[in-house]
Amino acid sequence: MENIQADKQTDERTIFIKMVLSNWQVQNGRINALFDKLSDEELAVETAPGRNTGIYLLGHMTAVHDAMLPLLGFGERLYPELDEVFVQSPDKSGLPKPSTANLREYWRKVGEALEQHINTTQPDEWFTRHNSVSEEDFAKEPHRNKLNIIINRTNHLSTHLGQLIYLAK
Amino acid sequence: MENIQADKQTDERTIFIKMVLSNWQVQNGRINALFDKLSDEELAVETAPGRNTGIYLLGHMTAVHDAMLPLLGFGERLYPELDEVFVQSPDKSGLPKPSTANLREYWRKVGEALEQHINTTQPDEWFTRHNSVSEEDFAKEPHRNKLNIIINRTNHLSTHLGQLIYLAK
Repeated sequence: MENIQADKQTDERTIFIKMVLSNWQVQNGRINALFDKLSDEELAVETAPGRNTGIYLLGHMTAVHDAMLPLLGFGERLYPELDEVFVQSPDKSGLPKPSTANLREYWRKVGEALEQHINTTQPDEWFTRHNSVSEEDFAKEPHRNKLNIIINRTNHLSTHLGQLIYLAK
Repeated sequence: MENIQADKQTDERTIFIKMVLSNWQVQNGRINALFDKLSDEELAVETAPGRNTGIYLLGHMTAVHDAMLPLLGFGERLYPELDEVFVQSPDKSGLPKPSTANLREYWRKVGEALEQHINTTQPDEWFTRHNSVSEEDFAKEPHRNKLNIIINRTNHLSTHLGQLIYLAK
């Protein structure tokens, strides 16, 4: 009976993880298909008058996903320098931006690094704390775990996907 | 030991439900704050040139959330007539739309109905199948449960939230 309970728990945990990761993967698939479809010229356009360009949002998403690597204990960031331009500064900051070809490459590399680590993360590991919550706070708020970061970042991606869609003809 | 396992499973299920529902509630809070902030005149504007107006997106979100009631076994829809105008037809269909005051009221009522049912749903119930997946398919794909609908619809909301933000000055 103990084994049955333990098995049931493992099964249920596997289902939770699949729910979260499948939504993450679907939304990543949609944004990747959109980035592939948009030319560099189309990405350079504002998503709405006076609003962020596609290039800025591509850089912003890359920076935010890159920051997930240390947050989830997956390792060092690949492109920490993106934060100054794409997170701490607005689109029209005047700061030099990497070329669109480079940004596309960074986005791809960050996506590959995340995917590789996500695919090899053990079920138990997803329910441990992420690296921006203290052990003390995590003891009180155990829902602030690594899997919760995936839910949160999927919604962040969806928000910007809704805006980037406006660049498609 | 058996009880400890069972308790641990219950705890983990509670944590997981909290993760999903807290993200749903945060994004609903954001979109409600935005709808409250926008005047009827601001909602009538296109979110970007040639794209959906705020009024259409308000009606669309209301219809999609209303359809969650039967999908989650929470009861009949409140406003099934919204589908023709806001789901099956585009913004500029020429079909008559309810007044913005009425749409705001429908949105509020649907939100209240969902919240009430969500708050009284028992943990086990979240992991049962939703009403658009067959028993046969659910046996093979147990992640297609009611809680997964919440994850999916939170992302749908986030996508349109990203667009509606463009109406704010």
